[in-house]
Amino acid sequence: MFRKEIKVMDCTIRDGGLQNCWQFSDKFVKAVYDACVEAGVDYMEIGYKSSENAYSKKENGPWKFCEEADLRRIVGDNNTNMKLAAMADIGRISFDDIPPKSESVLDMIRVACYDYQIDKGITLAEHCMDKGYEVCINLMAVSTVTEMVLDQALIDLSKSRVTTIYLVDSFGSMYSEQIAFLMNKYKAALPDKTIGFHGHNNMQLAFANTIETIIQGANMLDGTILGLGRGAGNCGTELLLTFLKNPKYRVKPIIKVIQDEIIPLQKELSWGYYIPYLVTGYLNLHPSSAIKWMDSDKRDDYMTFFEHTIDSRKELE
Amino acid sequence: MFRKEIKVMDCTIRDGGLQNCWQFSDKFVKAVYDACVEAGVDYMEIGYKSSENAYSKKENGPWKFCEEADLRRIVGDNNTNMKLAAMADIGRISFDDIPPKSESVLDMIRVACYDYQIDKGITLAEHCMDKGYEVCINLMAVSTVTEMVLDQALIDLSKSRVTTIYLVDSFGSMYSEQIAFLMNKYKAALPDKTIGFHGHNNMQLAFANTIETIIQGANMLDGTILGLGRGAGNCGTELLLTFLKNPKYRVKPIIKVIQDEIIPLQKELSWGYYIPYLVTGYLNLHPSSAIKWMDSDKRDDYMTFFEHTIDSRKELE
Repeated sequence: MFRKEIKVMDCTIRDGGLQNCWQFSDKFVKAVYDACVEAGVDYMEIGYKSSENAYSKKENGPWKFCEEADLRRIVGDNNTNMKLAAMADIGRISFDDIPPKSESVLDMIRVACYDYQIDKGITLAEHCMDKGYEVCINLMAVSTVTEMVLDQALIDLSKSRVTTIYLVDSFGSMYSEQIAFLMNKYKAALPDKTIGFHGHNNMQLAFANTIETIIQGANMLDGTILGLGRGAGNCGTELLLTFLKNPKYRVKPIIKVIQDEIIPLQKELSWGYYIPYLVTGYLNLHPSSAIKWMDSDKRDDYMTFFEHTIDSRKELE
Repeated sequence: MFRKEIKVMDCTIRDGGLQNCWQFSDKFVKAVYDACVEAGVDYMEIGYKSSENAYSKKENGPWKFCEEADLRRIVGDNNTNMKLAAMADIGRISFDDIPPKSESVLDMIRVACYDYQIDKGITLAEHCMDKGYEVCINLMAVSTVTEMVLDQALIDLSKSRVTTIYLVDSFGSMYSEQIAFLMNKYKAALPDKTIGFHGHNNMQLAFANTIETIIQGANMLDGTILGLGRGAGNCGTELLLTFLKNPKYRVKPIIKVIQDEIIPLQKELSWGYYIPYLVTGYLNLHPSSAIKWMDSDKRDDYMTFFEHTIDSRKELE
């Protein structure tokens, strides 16, 4: 698939950090950064911008906050063709936590919000635009939102100045037909905006769903290296780059960092396709219960998790 | 997706056996059999029918041969709703190795052949039909076959008495658009036959491609439990059953056997998504070089494999 408008965003540090509270070594973050630059990746999401009032610096590593000194320790002035992004969660950051673009090596702020926070999301995103950043809005967990509510959120987004809106499969619960349906809805509501996609791999569909959004016209595509991300993880950046035939991308540096840094990390962290993540994915539930289970000493007891989760769901129905 | 014509074939023992020369314990095979019966799986492919002239019994376990006494030790008379299948490879079996259906607990023989063996494949399949079996033909490695040759093979198959023909993604190299293209070709050429699909997971697309074939009308779908199969493995039977909304299927027994038998086996055997399999998949190469690499002490040296494989490919071009 060659389409020159397509951009790839590597979210390894940001989404992967959800697995270890962003306690990556500088060596690791630098290796991912170097690999992404060399691979021709367009954007690297290097962490969150968060308020210290919302999160403890004792528990969370530097990539939960993306302070300028930490960023520059890794990227210097980022004199590369790759742009740097950080995510901001509504309610966990104040305007004052975001410096003017002229004082930051970051190029983009990605605002993540739920449908019921859409006004706050647009306000924060436009505030970041006024400070000089590129922005996008990731509208999360739409697999649990009714169509009427989603349509209203898309109308609100269509009226905003934000130029890029992400379809997000937060729970890894979507099949290709749902992706196609939602992409058509987003395109119809947001004809002048770029549509992005961020998937999760609970049902081994993150890459396939990303391809489906490309077919349907998405031009901002998220990946993480070897899928390193929350729970089941994400679409592998290495998969995405082998699929995209654009000669600006090279998969070899990504394979090298997988061998040098990501595989060794698998000894400490487990992400990817495990049965508890499949269970929350196909039941369209937030993965938090599965993540908690996988962190416990009961992690291999899939049957108890399955029965417990099915029962909880019945109670909800 | 509810369509009553859909049947699921679990190939865990047959395809998984490619990873350990079919040296499964009886306990393991019985557990898989019991789980499939309880899960409502329609067919279980329990191994190969092979000639002892083609393969050594020293090196290969009983499921490479599927002798009647071995089968019955596990399944008795198979007084269940699940049918039993075995695969036969052209050139590795003679007619005499196949008993009449009246003397066998097997219900189906699946003939695997390449395009250049299509005459032999049809002849063997029709021979098995005459002996009383259901049959199907798996036409392998079509990702490397020119369209003219494939069209001719499909014409030959259309004239045969064989009622079920499989689209097979032998190298795990196909994307959804190729799947849709081929499914339409198979349907047009074989309007009165059932189309099946067997995928491999080199690019994490085995499940997604199976869904695409369902959308396009395939009604015989292969899975293996937790994807246990050659190299990158296959579409997970557990994924397939959660996708199919047909009430005859239950995923719980499959999750149980994953916990009890498949996860412990991961300590001895490695299959699934690894970079060498991605490399052969996206380059549309047979996985044998990646399997050999993963069996060697160089298995974690992805870069050398990548460079060697890219170079070999250039030599071929």
